[in-house]
Amino acid sequence: MAGNSFGKLFEVMSFGESHGPAIGCIVDGVPPGISLSEEDIQPFLDRRRPGQSRHTTQRQESDKVQILSGVFEGQTTGMPIGLLILNEDTRSKDYDDIKDKFRPGHADYTFFRKYGIRDYRGGGRSSARETAMRVAAGAIARKILGEKITIRGAMIQMGPHAINRDNWDWNLTQNNPFWCPDSEAAAKWETFLDDVRKAGSSTGGIIEIVASGVPAGWGEPTFDRLDADIAKGLMNIPAVKGVEIGAGFAAAALDGLVNPDEMRKGKNSDPEFLSNNAGGVLGGISTGQDIVARFAVKPTSSISSTRRTITTSGENTEIVTKGRHDPCVGIRAVPVGEAMIACVLADHFLRYRGQCGG
Amino acid sequence: MAGNSFGKLFEVMSFGESHGPAIGCIVDGVPPGISLSEEDIQPFLDRRRPGQSRHTTQRQESDKVQILSGVFEGQTTGMPIGLLILNEDTRSKDYDDIKDKFRPGHADYTFFRKYGIRDYRGGGRSSARETAMRVAAGAIARKILGEKITIRGAMIQMGPHAINRDNWDWNLTQNNPFWCPDSEAAAKWETFLDDVRKAGSSTGGIIEIVASGVPAGWGEPTFDRLDADIAKGLMNIPAVKGVEIGAGFAAAALDGLVNPDEMRKGKNSDPEFLSNNAGGVLGGISTGQDIVARFAVKPTSSISSTRRTITTSGENTEIVTKGRHDPCVGIRAVPVGEAMIACVLADHFLRYRGQCGG
Amino acid sequence: MAGNSFGKLFEVMSFGESHGPAIGCIVDGVPPGISLSEEDIQPFLDRRRPGQSRHTTQRQESDKVQILSGVFEGQTTGMPIGLLILNEDTRSKDYDDIKDKFRPGHADYTFFRKYGIRDYRGGGRSSARETAMRVAAGAIARKILGEKITIRGAMIQMGPHAINRDNWDWNLTQNNPFWCPDSEAAAKWETFLDDVRKAGSSTGGIIEIVASGVPAGWGEPTFDRLDADIAKGLMNIPAVKGVEIGAGFAAAALDGLVNPDEMRKGKNSDPEFLSNNAGGVLGGISTGQDIVARFAVKPTSSISSTRRTITTSGENTEIVTKGRHDPCVGIRAVPVGEAMIACVLADHFLRYRGQCGG
Amino acid sequence: MAGNSFGKLFEVMSFGESHGPAIGCIVDGVPPGISLSEEDIQPFLDRRRPGQSRHTTQRQESDKVQILSGVFEGQTTGMPIGLLILNEDTRSKDYDDIKDKFRPGHADYTFFRKYGIRDYRGGGRSSARETAMRVAAGAIARKILGEKITIRGAMIQMGPHAINRDNWDWNLTQNNPFWCPDSEAAAKWETFLDDVRKAGSSTGGIIEIVASGVPAGWGEPTFDRLDADIAKGLMNIPAVKGVEIGAGFAAAALDGLVNPDEMRKGKNSDPEFLSNNAGGVLGGISTGQDIVARFAVKPTSSISSTRRTITTSGENTEIVTKGRHDPCVGIRAVPVGEAMIACVLADHFLRYRGQCGG
Repeated sequence: MAGNSFGKLFEVMSFGESHGPAIGCIVDGVPPGISLSEEDIQPFLDRRRPGQSRHTTQRQESDKVQILSGVFEGQTTGMPIGLLILNEDTRSKDYDDIKDKFRPGHADYTFFRKYGIRDYRGGGRSSARETAMRVAAGAIARKILGEKITIRGAMIQMGPHAINRDNWDWNLTQNNPFWCPDSEAAAKWETFLDDVRKAGSSTGGIIEIVASGVPAGWGEPTFDRLDADIAKGLMNIPAVKGVEIGAGFAAAALDGLVNPDEMRKGKNSDPEFLSNNAGGVLGGISTGQDIVARFAVKPTSSISSTRRTITTSGENTEIVTKGRHDPCVGIRAVPVGEAMIACVLADHFLRYRGQCGG
Repeated sequence: MAGNSFGKLFEVMSFGESHGPAIGCIVDGVPPGISLSEEDIQPFLDRRRPGQSRHTTQRQESDKVQILSGVFEGQTTGMPIGLLILNEDTRSKDYDDIKDKFRPGHADYTFFRKYGIRDYRGGGRSSARETAMRVAAGAIARKILGEKITIRGAMIQMGPHAINRDNWDWNLTQNNPFWCPDSEAAAKWETFLDDVRKAGSSTGGIIEIVASGVPAGWGEPTFDRLDADIAKGLMNIPAVKGVEIGAGFAAAALDGLVNPDEMRKGKNSDPEFLSNNAGGVLGGISTGQDIVARFAVKPTSSISSTRRTITTSGENTEIVTKGRHDPCVGIRAVPVGEAMIACVLADHFLRYRGQCGG
Repeated sequence: MAGNSFGKLFEVMSFGESHGPAIGCIVDGVPPGISLSEEDIQPFLDRRRPGQSRHTTQRQESDKVQILSGVFEGQTTGMPIGLLILNEDTRSKDYDDIKDKFRPGHADYTFFRKYGIRDYRGGGRSSARETAMRVAAGAIARKILGEKITIRGAMIQMGPHAINRDNWDWNLTQNNPFWCPDSEAAAKWETFLDDVRKAGSSTGGIIEIVASGVPAGWGEPTFDRLDADIAKGLMNIPAVKGVEIGAGFAAAALDGLVNPDEMRKGKNSDPEFLSNNAGGVLGGISTGQDIVARFAVKPTSSISSTRRTITTSGENTEIVTKGRHDPCVGIRAVPVGEAMIACVLADHFLRYRGQCGG
Repeated sequence: MAGNSFGKLFEVMSFGESHGPAIGCIVDGVPPGISLSEEDIQPFLDRRRPGQSRHTTQRQESDKVQILSGVFEGQTTGMPIGLLILNEDTRSKDYDDIKDKFRPGHADYTFFRKYGIRDYRGGGRSSARETAMRVAAGAIARKILGEKITIRGAMIQMGPHAINRDNWDWNLTQNNPFWCPDSEAAAKWETFLDDVRKAGSSTGGIIEIVASGVPAGWGEPTFDRLDADIAKGLMNIPAVKGVEIGAGFAAAALDGLVNPDEMRKGKNSDPEFLSNNAGGVLGGISTGQDIVARFAVKPTSSISSTRRTITTSGENTEIVTKGRHDPCVGIRAVPVGEAMIACVLADHFLRYRGQCGG
């Protein structure tokens, strides 16, 4: 209830701060009889792991996940799955300078106002480090969804530089440090990001997640719409400021004759849609088309330039954030966004099955 | 759990279809001792009510709300508040033509796939009629929040036509049928919307909601962030395809030196922020600045032009949607968006008080 | 969250006070495609209805239930089902005498302490009148469970007078005003209850509910055990002070060689148990045997004799409760207990199907 | 949702099997600013720990709890608290004999039927080992409740042997291995339990928990009554078959003139009640009197005598449960019962504060 759990039938509750001994989560509601081991989870964590290129934080964490329960002889038992990752490379000293100041754009001030106390080391609970557990939970969600459903993410804009969608090639997302599906854009971004970092600044980005193979009929009609749960899941990622589905904000400007996706008899039992402005969701329930969601990540707030701020006692001061930070946190948000959507889909799959059977 | 309730401490569960005998909801968790009567709720319903200008559906509903419980001698008792609105002007015959066809852009197809059965009269549960109960619940949420918190909405773009933000005047939103804060834009929209309707088409829009007076410290840090609950609340409104907070999608293109809102010592106990790109939320918790959210509404899917679709048995056909429809559902979404944000804020106010006291 | 809803996948939220205009509830999560009409619900309400013999309150309520949503052409649609019962025979004047006094054994004092305000007319929300909605929801739960599962209740003790279990005949429970399965006991109770009423007093009772046909495998292993949800459901009925499953409190005194139910190969796929001390639940999950639960109801607190109490301003006073009250509320608790168990079972059926499929 | 979490505002989710690497839990919703360290939790775990007398299992576990998050510089931060206990003395070989058989009275059969798979080592998740995390969470709940509220438990009956309540001395509960408040009974039980163990059998017991200092006004009126949540919490403890509040089952036989607790003006602002048949709860809300709950624990199902059962493939067989088992699991249920009530009270304290302020 205090906002550390997500999902209803597929439920994840997490704990852990950036500079505490460990982070972890419990994944509850997993169906029994699914093969699962650390090897199913680790590759997704490795994709999110920092320190893999010069474009992400140089903090070195092996992020080795341990399964502590819920799996027996290689199969899920239906019991809650406890996951644990030890924190390794914590340099808390980096944060002594900021313990009495609020970093602009950070949760420092709001945590202080709500709780009257904050673990300032590395941002404590507000650190993006917490998202590792989402990625781990997302890997389990994928196992529940099975291989017919794929969930892939790509960064489609870095700072002001959007990709050319005509160049889209999913394979490229595995071959550059930006999950960029357009090789020309990726090259441009590399230079751009170096410049940003040298300027003591940071940049944002826009990410697109596509879930394919989701059958028609998942979701709810009123207050837990599939797209609303996706919006919530994505907006819950640190630094995210906007979410859209299908045509998204552009839908507002589309003509009423263009926007609704017309339907034709399909080759097999499913119909063919003549467009996908809906992004795979109508009335809160999946259509069977690709689910397409986008989200915007603001520039990293931890920058090495001097900013104006106040102290915890309310006096004016200035701040420079040291430490090892991602110049574009949007990059590492790609696997996190995939994971959130995997969790939402697993939840709605089980909810569908509960109410409607089959 | 089947998606007809919203909120945790301030909880709303609703029921009702467009063409059934009534719609209603239960509002649970209301603090005791708040003065409340139908007169506190009715004005908000009247603002959303159809048939008030030629720009909204001509269906005539008085939408008179009855309080059935939870209020005694003019005060809330802490007991659940039952609300009821009878349906009056239902012309179910209008829908005979579509009972075996799926209207493109509508929930017809997805409801059929999920439930195998649908109440096709007026869209049944998927009708925007259901949102009247949200407006009623929102009126109660406002009473909980008190008069220091104001929640106001404006339409800032209709179809491709955005307002000029320099012209912004909140008073104007009460003086035109579009909740438009820019009189020039309002005049332009009037012509535009007449043209759209004559063309047998429809249009979308973008709405901005501003909540002022929210104290710092409301929200949760991880999975029920205040902005994530707002995003979910708004995306749960029928026809919404995108949501953003503060700088929103534009934040992705902002420089890291510009985006974070710097802070200075304020006049009273609260600091002064030098900008509000955050939109009033940092790390999922309110900053004390205005909470600024925007959402995009797609063009009404019910249009009087012929569209291609399939029948419930999967055969190709064509469809013309008769009935009385809003050419721009975005207009009536303004009070609904305000209500959703009121509900989210009331919920987080009570959650704050539960965990942190005071 | 404020305690007016029950169940997770099969969820009931109710509202309404004894002397308000109406009581009602929303039943959410009902699977689609189940035939349902008022005629499926009314008989259960009629069984609970007051004024049917001299042994229950003489308040006359027809308790006619209306289905307001969620059913289309005789079938459930998967949408929330709104139910409404108008209050008819409310004599609020009866309660003027007690508006400033706390009736001993009643919720008057605790409501006042929690909320600072109470609707004293007929006990307001704390009135057993609210249980009519549980019975209505239970009737829907039974439709979900299907005809293979039967849920029957009997009163097995009135005041100090227990039945002789050797005389148990389920048919008798329909033939006397006490749901008593033992005709000899029923005869004795009739005299006993007349005496109690004449003495200006009241009496309690013990009720046993048996659910047959529940398959093995429903329930949860740790915190939502099937027996724990049953215990909560029954303890949530007004005036209930104890709940037990199977051998119950007597299990504490059984020898460890006797208590565990041994198993033998059965005639069909299910095993045969050689006893049922478990009451159909082991480790929080159903065994396939009859689920047997008992609950104790205290004597009605509203009695016509003078009792010592205090006023709302804390001064000593005396009270006599007028109005029309059941001398043994346990009697009307029988259909309510059945309904609560039906609701718990429907919920766990859907939960089972969600996690485990099938 | 899959039944591994408990509580709404004070929420505990746990994981872990008897013979896995560790057990753990997350405690969410803890107010900030409460002093907390492992030393606040460990003493309660030590009270529950096995191997402390010849009357409990000889399995040796140090049960050292680690706090992994949510505490900073000795104070709670409002963030979720991760707790971990490593499993040490696991002798899984003891369980090879039973992997294909169902132990009568155990969850073996029902887990197999629900999940189709079970971790048979030490009962897996169904082992009482899981209750260690409840005790740890209960210790945190006590810190939230503060020192004015005390929660104490006593065993009041072992097998058929009840205490003499006239001898009740709370201090004695710390001085014998049975939490027995009556020294004569404790002496008798010692011999009785040795005999039971020698006979290859086991025995049950009844435990009473008393919570003193709870203010009037905590609880909910309808479906989350304080007594109903207590009933659920206690019935969720492994092997519990019955729960009662105040006069409990005996209330059914009390006269209506005797059962309701009369009230008189008290010495301070609270009234004086002339009895406590209610057990501190009226209408689901606390009265300010002691909250008194009792629960019955069945005899340990794991006994060293030969019992009839079936195999996982449904054939008749016999079973003898080896391993190291408590002859009376009721003993170690005392601190678990206290913990469950502490958790329920902490939850309702926060819920009260959320809705009613203060």
